[in-house]
Amino acid sequence: MDKKQEIKAEVLSSRYLFKEPWLTVREEAIRLPNGAEVPRYYVLEYPDWVNVLAITKDKKFVMIRQYRHGIREEHFEFCGGVVDAGDASPLAAAKRELLEETGYGNGRWTFNLRMSANPSTTNNWTYNFIAEDVELVSGQCLDGGECLTVHLLELDEIKSLLAANEIVQSVHACALWKYLAENHLL
Amino acid sequence: MDKKQEIKAEVLSSRYLFKEPWLTVREEAIRLPNGAEVPRYYVLEYPDWVNVLAITKDKKFVMIRQYRHGIREEHFEFCGGVVDAGDASPLAAAKRELLEETGYGNGRWTFNLRMSANPSTTNNWTYNFIAEDVELVSGQCLDGGECLTVHLLELDEIKSLLAANEIVQSVHACALWKYLAENHLL
Repeated sequence: MDKKQEIKAEVLSSRYLFKEPWLTVREEAIRLPNGAEVPRYYVLEYPDWVNVLAITKDKKFVMIRQYRHGIREEHFEFCGGVVDAGDASPLAAAKRELLEETGYGNGRWTFNLRMSANPSTTNNWTYNFIAEDVELVSGQCLDGGECLTVHLLELDEIKSLLAANEIVQSVHACALWKYLAENHLL
Repeated sequence: MDKKQEIKAEVLSSRYLFKEPWLTVREEAIRLPNGAEVPRYYVLEYPDWVNVLAITKDKKFVMIRQYRHGIREEHFEFCGGVVDAGDASPLAAAKRELLEETGYGNGRWTFNLRMSANPSTTNNWTYNFIAEDVELVSGQCLDGGECLTVHLLELDEIKSLLAANEIVQSVHACALWKYLAENHLL
Protein backbone atom coordinates (compact mmCIF):
# COMPACT_ATOMS: atom_id res chain seq x y z
CA MET A 1 0.00 0.00 0.00
CA ASP A 2 3.06 2.23 -0.27
CA LYS A 3 2.66 3.50 3.28
CA LYS A 4 5.33 6.06 3.82
CA GLN A 5 7.31 6.63 7.03
CA GLU A 6 5.45 9.05 9.25
CA ILE A 7 7.19 12.35 9.88
CA LYS A 8 5.74 14.98 12.19
CA ALA A 9 6.05 18.73 11.82
CA GLU A 10 8.62 20.45 14.00
CA VAL A 11 7.13 22.92 16.47
CA LEU A 12 9.26 26.08 16.43
CA SER A 13 7.21 28.05 18.99
CA SER A 14 3.95 27.56 20.82
CA ARG A 15 1.71 29.73 22.99
CA TYR A 16 -1.89 29.75 24.19
CA LEU A 17 -4.09 32.46 22.71
CA PHE A 18 -7.07 31.38 24.73
CA LYS A 19 -7.63 28.93 27.58
CA GLU A 20 -11.31 28.83 28.52
CA PRO A 21 -13.39 25.74 29.41
CA TRP A 22 -14.97 25.60 25.93
CA LEU A 23 -12.28 27.33 23.87
CA THR A 24 -8.61 26.51 24.11
CA VAL A 25 -6.51 27.75 21.19
CA ARG A 26 -2.80 27.18 20.69
CA GLU A 27 -0.89 29.28 18.16
CA GLU A 28 2.23 27.59 16.84
CA ALA A 29 4.96 28.26 14.32
CA ILE A 30 5.71 24.94 12.66
CA ARG A 31 8.04 23.52 10.02
CA LEU A 32 6.25 20.95 7.85
CA PRO A 33 7.92 17.69 6.80
CA ASN A 34 8.66 19.28 3.38
CA GLY A 35 10.55 22.15 5.06
CA ALA A 36 7.87 24.80 4.56
CA GLU A 37 7.29 27.01 7.59
CA VAL A 38 3.81 28.01 8.76
CA PRO A 39 4.21 31.01 11.08
CA ARG A 40 0.73 30.88 12.65
CA TYR A 41 -0.92 27.47 12.88
CA TYR A 42 -3.94 27.29 15.19
CA VAL A 43 -4.74 24.11 17.12
CA LEU A 44 -8.03 23.83 19.02
CA GLU A 45 -7.62 21.69 22.13
CA TYR A 46 -10.58 19.66 23.38
CA PRO A 47 -11.06 16.68 25.68
CA ASP A 48 -11.93 13.48 23.81
CA TRP A 49 -15.57 13.07 22.83
CA VAL A 50 -17.82 10.00 22.94
CA ASN A 51 -21.14 9.06 21.41
CA VAL A 52 -23.39 6.00 21.48
CA LEU A 53 -25.28 4.01 18.86
CA ALA A 54 -27.83 2.62 21.32
CA ILE A 55 -30.50 0.04 20.45
CA THR A 56 -33.23 -1.19 22.79
CA LYS A 57 -34.23 -4.83 23.33
CA ASP A 58 -37.10 -4.33 20.88
CA LYS A 59 -34.70 -3.00 18.21
CA LYS A 60 -35.42 0.72 18.48
CA PHE A 61 -32.57 3.20 17.98
CA VAL A 62 -32.24 5.63 20.90
CA MET A 63 -31.73 9.00 19.21
CA ILE A 64 -31.94 12.56 20.44
CA ARG A 65 -32.84 15.84 18.80
CA GLN A 66 -30.74 18.75 19.94
CA TYR A 67 -30.35 22.33 18.78
CA ARG A 68 -26.75 23.00 17.67
CA HIS A 69 -25.73 26.61 17.68
CA GLY A 70 -22.77 26.32 15.27
CA ILE A 71 -25.07 25.50 12.34
CA ARG A 72 -28.19 26.97 14.05
CA GLU A 73 -30.21 23.83 13.29
CA GLU A 74 -31.69 20.86 15.09
CA HIS A 75 -31.24 17.30 13.80
CA PHE A 76 -31.47 13.70 14.93
CA GLU A 77 -28.19 12.56 16.48
CA PHE A 78 -26.69 10.12 18.98
CA CYS A 79 -26.39 11.01 22.60
CA GLY A 80 -22.82 11.85 23.54
CA GLY A 81 -20.51 14.23 25.29
CA VAL A 82 -17.09 14.88 26.68
CA VAL A 83 -14.76 12.43 28.46
CA ASP A 84 -14.54 14.08 31.88
CA ALA A 85 -11.56 13.91 34.23
CA GLY A 86 -13.66 11.63 36.46
CA ASP A 87 -14.37 9.09 33.69
CA ALA A 88 -12.20 5.96 33.89
CA SER A 89 -12.26 5.53 30.08
CA PRO A 90 -14.10 6.64 26.94
CA LEU A 91 -16.44 3.66 27.47
CA ALA A 92 -17.24 4.80 31.00
CA ALA A 93 -17.94 8.31 29.69
CA ALA A 94 -20.24 6.91 26.99
CA LYS A 95 -22.23 4.87 29.55
CA ARG A 96 -22.54 7.93 31.81
CA GLU A 97 -23.68 10.16 28.93
CA LEU A 98 -26.30 7.67 27.70
CA LEU A 99 -27.73 7.35 31.20
CA GLU A 100 -27.73 11.11 31.90
CA GLU A 101 -29.14 12.21 28.56
CA THR A 102 -31.65 9.45 27.89
CA GLY A 103 -32.15 7.35 31.04
CA TYR A 104 -31.11 4.20 29.13
CA GLY A 105 -28.48 1.80 30.51
CA ASN A 106 -27.37 -1.82 30.86
CA GLY A 107 -27.06 -3.76 27.57
CA ARG A 108 -24.03 -5.13 25.69
CA TRP A 109 -21.40 -2.54 24.78
CA THR A 110 -18.79 -2.81 22.02
CA PHE A 111 -16.32 -0.35 20.54
CA ASN A 112 -17.21 0.68 16.98
CA LEU A 113 -14.97 3.51 15.74
CA ARG A 114 -12.41 6.11 16.74
CA MET A 115 -12.61 9.19 14.52
CA SER A 116 -11.25 12.68 14.17
CA ALA A 117 -13.85 15.32 13.33
CA ASN A 118 -11.07 17.54 11.99
CA PRO A 119 -7.45 16.33 12.26
CA SER A 120 -5.95 19.59 11.01
CA THR A 121 -7.56 21.91 13.56
CA THR A 122 -8.48 19.79 16.61
CA ASN A 123 -6.25 17.63 18.78
CA ASN A 124 -8.85 15.22 20.13
CA TRP A 125 -10.58 11.95 19.17
CA THR A 126 -14.21 10.92 19.09
CA TYR A 127 -15.08 7.37 20.20
CA ASN A 128 -18.28 5.66 19.10
CA PHE A 129 -19.68 2.69 20.98
CA ILE A 130 -22.52 0.33 20.10
CA ALA A 131 -24.86 -0.43 23.01
CA GLU A 132 -27.32 -3.23 22.24
CA ASP A 133 -30.31 -4.35 24.33
CA VAL A 134 -30.30 -1.19 26.44
CA GLU A 135 -33.21 -0.62 28.87
CA LEU A 136 -34.82 2.45 30.39
CA VAL A 137 -33.39 2.48 33.92
CA SER A 138 -33.88 6.09 35.10
CA GLY A 139 -35.11 9.53 34.10
CA GLN A 140 -33.06 12.09 32.16
CA CYS A 141 -30.58 14.15 34.15
CA LEU A 142 -29.62 17.15 32.01
CA ASP A 143 -27.54 20.14 32.99
CA GLY A 144 -28.88 23.63 32.27
CA GLY A 145 -27.07 24.04 28.97
CA GLU A 146 -28.53 20.85 27.51
CA CYS A 147 -31.76 21.10 25.58
CA LEU A 148 -32.70 17.83 23.93
CA THR A 149 -35.50 15.32 23.44
CA VAL A 150 -35.22 11.52 23.24
CA HIS A 151 -36.75 9.60 20.32
CA LEU A 152 -36.99 5.86 19.69
CA LEU A 153 -36.67 5.24 15.94
CA GLU A 154 -37.27 2.13 13.87
CA LEU A 155 -34.52 0.77 11.62
CA ASP A 156 -36.48 1.91 8.56
CA GLU A 157 -36.63 5.46 9.94
CA ILE A 158 -32.86 5.46 10.52
CA LYS A 159 -32.29 4.23 6.96
CA SER A 160 -34.59 6.92 5.57
CA LEU A 161 -32.78 9.62 7.54
CA LEU A 162 -29.40 8.39 6.29
CA ALA A 163 -30.58 8.16 2.69
CA ALA A 164 -31.97 11.70 2.90
CA ASN A 165 -28.69 12.99 4.38
CA GLU A 166 -30.59 14.15 7.47
CA ILE A 167 -28.15 12.77 10.02
CA VAL A 168 -25.70 15.54 9.37
CA GLN A 169 -23.06 15.01 12.05
CA SER A 170 -20.28 13.10 10.29
CA VAL A 171 -19.11 11.13 13.34
CA HIS A 172 -22.67 9.85 13.89
CA ALA A 173 -23.55 9.15 10.25
CA CYS A 174 -20.24 7.32 9.79
CA ALA A 175 -20.86 5.06 12.78
CA LEU A 176 -24.39 4.27 11.52
CA TRP A 177 -23.33 3.46 7.94
CA LYS A 178 -20.60 1.14 9.30
CA TYR A 179 -22.96 -0.58 11.75
CA LEU A 180 -25.74 -1.09 9.18
CA ALA A 181 -23.28 -2.31 6.53
CA GLU A 182 -21.47 -4.75 8.80
CA ASN A 183 -24.74 -6.15 10.15
CA HIS A 184 -26.30 -6.50 6.68
CA LEU A 185 -29.15 -4.17 7.61
CA LEU A 186 -29.04 -1.98 4.50
CA MET B 1 -40.96 10.09 13.38
CA ASP B 2 -42.12 12.64 15.92
CA LYS B 3 -40.07 15.41 14.35
CA LYS B 4 -40.47 18.46 16.51
CA GLN B 5 -40.78 22.05 15.30
CA GLU B 6 -37.33 23.59 14.98
CA ILE B 7 -36.56 26.44 17.35
CA LYS B 8 -33.30 28.37 17.22
CA ALA B 9 -31.45 29.93 20.16
CA GLU B 10 -31.81 33.66 20.62
CA VAL B 11 -28.54 35.58 20.26
CA LEU B 12 -28.33 38.15 23.07
CA SER B 13 -24.91 39.57 22.14
CA SER B 14 -22.17 38.73 19.67
CA ARG B 15 -18.59 39.85 19.07
CA TYR B 16 -15.49 38.58 17.29
CA LEU B 17 -12.62 37.41 19.51
CA PHE B 18 -10.40 36.58 16.50
CA LYS B 19 -10.70 37.30 12.82
CA GLU B 20 -7.64 35.72 11.21
CA PRO B 21 -7.55 33.85 7.88
CA TRP B 22 -7.44 30.44 9.65
CA LEU B 23 -9.05 31.34 12.97
CA THR B 24 -12.29 33.26 13.23
CA VAL B 25 -14.03 32.96 16.60
CA ARG B 26 -17.31 34.56 17.59
CA GLU B 27 -18.24 34.81 21.26
CA GLU B 28 -21.98 34.99 21.85
CA ALA B 29 -24.38 35.12 24.75
CA ILE B 30 -27.35 32.98 23.78
CA ARG B 31 -30.70 31.91 25.21
CA LEU B 32 -31.42 28.26 24.38
CA PRO B 33 -34.88 27.11 23.31
CA ASN B 34 -35.47 25.85 26.89
CA GLY B 35 -34.80 29.35 28.28
CA ALA B 36 -31.35 28.60 29.71
CA GLU B 37 -28.78 31.31 29.03
CA VAL B 38 -25.22 30.52 27.97
CA PRO B 39 -23.12 33.64 28.61
CA ARG B 40 -20.08 32.65 26.50
CA TYR B 41 -20.76 30.38 23.52
CA TYR B 42 -17.91 30.13 21.00
CA VAL B 43 -18.60 29.63 17.31
CA LEU B 44 -15.72 28.90 14.92
CA GLU B 45 -16.40 30.38 11.48
CA TYR B 46 -14.96 28.64 8.42
CA PRO B 47 -15.69 28.68 4.70
CA ASP B 48 -17.41 25.51 3.49
CA TRP B 49 -15.13 22.54 2.84
CA VAL B 50 -15.19 19.98 0.03
CA ASN B 51 -13.62 16.57 -0.53
CA VAL B 52 -13.67 14.02 -3.32
CA LEU B 53 -14.11 10.25 -3.48
CA ALA B 54 -12.27 9.86 -6.80
CA ILE B 55 -11.98 6.60 -8.74
CA THR B 56 -9.96 6.09 -11.92
CA LYS B 57 -11.15 4.31 -15.07
CA ASP B 58 -9.35 1.16 -13.89
CA LYS B 59 -11.17 1.29 -10.52
CA LYS B 60 -8.37 2.66 -8.35
CA PHE B 61 -9.25 5.04 -5.50
CA VAL B 62 -7.28 8.31 -5.67
CA MET B 63 -6.17 8.90 -2.07
CA ILE B 64 -3.61 11.15 -0.49
CA ARG B 65 -1.46 10.92 2.60
CA GLN B 66 -1.07 14.17 4.45
CA TYR B 67 0.40 15.15 7.80
CA ARG B 68 -2.27 16.77 10.00
CA HIS B 69 -0.94 18.92 12.77
CA GLY B 70 -4.04 18.85 15.02
CA ILE B 71 -3.58 15.14 15.77
CA ARG B 72 0.14 15.14 14.77
CA GLU B 73 -0.37 12.09 12.54
CA GLU B 74 -0.45 11.20 8.86
CA HIS B 75 -3.24 9.03 7.40
CA PHE B 76 -4.84 8.12 4.10
CA GLU B 77 -7.57 10.60 3.20
CA PHE B 78 -9.44 12.15 0.27
CA CYS B 79 -8.14 15.19 -1.46
CA GLY B 80 -10.12 18.27 -0.49
CA GLY B 81 -10.02 21.87 0.63
CA VAL B 82 -11.87 25.10 1.10
CA VAL B 83 -14.56 26.61 -1.13
CA ASP B 84 -12.80 29.82 -2.21
CA ALA B 85 -14.53 33.10 -3.05
CA GLY B 86 -13.62 32.43 -6.70
CA ASP B 87 -15.33 29.01 -6.81
CA ALA B 88 -18.75 29.06 -8.50
CA SER B 89 -20.02 26.21 -6.27
CA PRO B 90 -18.85 23.45 -3.92
CA LEU B 91 -18.65 21.17 -6.99
CA ALA B 92 -16.38 23.64 -8.79
CA ALA B 93 -14.18 23.83 -5.68
CA ALA B 94 -13.99 20.03 -5.49
CA LYS B 95 -12.94 19.76 -9.16
CA ARG B 96 -10.29 22.45 -8.63
CA GLU B 97 -8.92 20.77 -5.51
CA LEU B 98 -8.71 17.32 -7.15
CA LEU B 99 -6.83 18.77 -10.11
CA GLU B 100 -4.45 20.87 -7.98
CA GLU B 101 -3.66 18.22 -5.37
CA THR B 102 -3.54 15.11 -7.54
CA GLY B 103 -3.50 16.09 -11.23
CA TYR B 104 -6.67 14.03 -11.83
CA GLY B 105 -9.67 15.47 -13.69
CA ASN B 106 -12.53 14.78 -16.10
CA GLY B 107 -14.81 11.87 -15.14
CA ARG B 108 -18.44 11.73 -13.98
CA TRP B 109 -19.22 13.76 -10.87
CA THR B 110 -22.14 13.25 -8.47
CA PHE B 111 -23.03 14.72 -5.10
CA ASN B 112 -22.73 12.21 -2.26
CA LEU B 113 -23.14 13.87 1.15
CA ARG B 114 -23.33 17.15 3.01
CA MET B 115 -22.00 16.84 6.54
CA SER B 116 -21.11 18.90 9.57
CA ALA B 117 -17.81 17.94 11.22
CA ASN B 118 -19.02 19.59 14.43
CA PRO B 119 -22.42 21.35 14.42
CA SER B 120 -22.01 22.76 17.92
CA THR B 121 -18.73 24.60 17.38
CA THR B 122 -18.40 25.25 13.63
CA ASN B 123 -20.77 27.11 11.29
CA ASN B 124 -19.78 25.50 8.01
CA TRP B 125 -20.64 22.44 5.91
CA THR B 126 -18.48 19.82 4.24
CA TYR B 127 -19.57 18.55 0.81
CA ASN B 128 -18.44 15.18 -0.54
CA PHE B 129 -18.56 14.39 -4.24
CA ILE B 130 -18.01 11.12 -6.08
CA ALA B 131 -15.84 11.44 -9.21
CA GLU B 132 -15.81 8.26 -11.31
CA ASP B 133 -13.59 7.48 -14.30
CA VAL B 134 -11.16 10.31 -13.54
CA GLU B 135 -7.93 10.54 -15.56
CA LEU B 136 -4.49 11.98 -14.92
CA VAL B 137 -4.58 15.24 -16.86
CA SER B 138 -1.78 17.33 -15.29
CA GLY B 139 0.88 17.42 -12.60
CA GLN B 140 0.26 18.37 -8.97
CA CYS B 141 0.13 22.07 -8.17
CA LEU B 142 0.55 22.44 -4.41
CA ASP B 143 0.98 25.62 -2.42
CA GLY B 144 3.82 25.86 0.09
CA GLY B 145 1.76 24.81 3.10
CA GLU B 146 0.61 21.58 1.45
CA CYS B 147 2.69 18.48 2.00
CA LEU B 148 1.04 15.38 0.59
CA THR B 149 1.57 12.34 -1.61
CA VAL B 150 -0.92 10.73 -4.01
CA HIS B 151 -1.69 7.00 -3.81
CA LEU B 152 -3.85 4.81 -6.04
CA LEU B 153 -5.50 2.15 -3.87
CA GLU B 154 -7.44 -0.98 -4.80
CA LEU B 155 -10.97 -1.53 -3.47
CA ASP B 156 -9.65 -4.28 -1.19
CA GLU B 157 -7.09 -1.89 0.29
CA ILE B 158 -9.81 0.70 0.97
CA LYS B 159 -11.96 -1.96 2.65
CA SER B 160 -9.01 -3.09 4.80
CA LEU B 161 -8.29 0.50 5.85
CA LEU B 162 -11.94 1.07 6.79
CA ALA B 163 -12.18 -2.21 8.70
CA ALA B 164 -8.98 -1.35 10.60
CA ASN B 165 -10.34 2.15 11.43
CA GLU B 166 -7.35 3.68 9.64
CA ILE B 167 -9.30 6.25 7.66
CA VAL B 168 -9.75 8.43 10.70
CA GLN B 169 -11.32 11.57 9.28
CA SER B 170 -15.05 11.16 9.91
CA VAL B 171 -16.23 13.09 6.85
CA HIS B 172 -14.10 10.84 4.60
CA ALA B 173 -14.86 7.52 6.29
CA CYS B 174 -18.58 8.33 6.27
CA ALA B 175 -18.58 9.06 2.54
CA LEU B 176 -16.69 5.80 1.85
CA TRP B 177 -18.98 3.60 3.97
CA LYS B 178 -22.04 5.12 2.23
CA TYR B 179 -20.54 4.69 -1.25
CA LEU B 180 -19.45 1.10 -0.67
CA ALA B 181 -22.76 0.16 0.97
CA GLU B 182 -24.93 1.73 -1.73
CA ASN B 183 -22.88 0.15 -4.51
CA HIS B 184 -22.85 -3.30 -2.88
CA LEU B 185 -19.05 -3.30 -2.70
CA LEU B 186 -18.72 -4.44 0.92
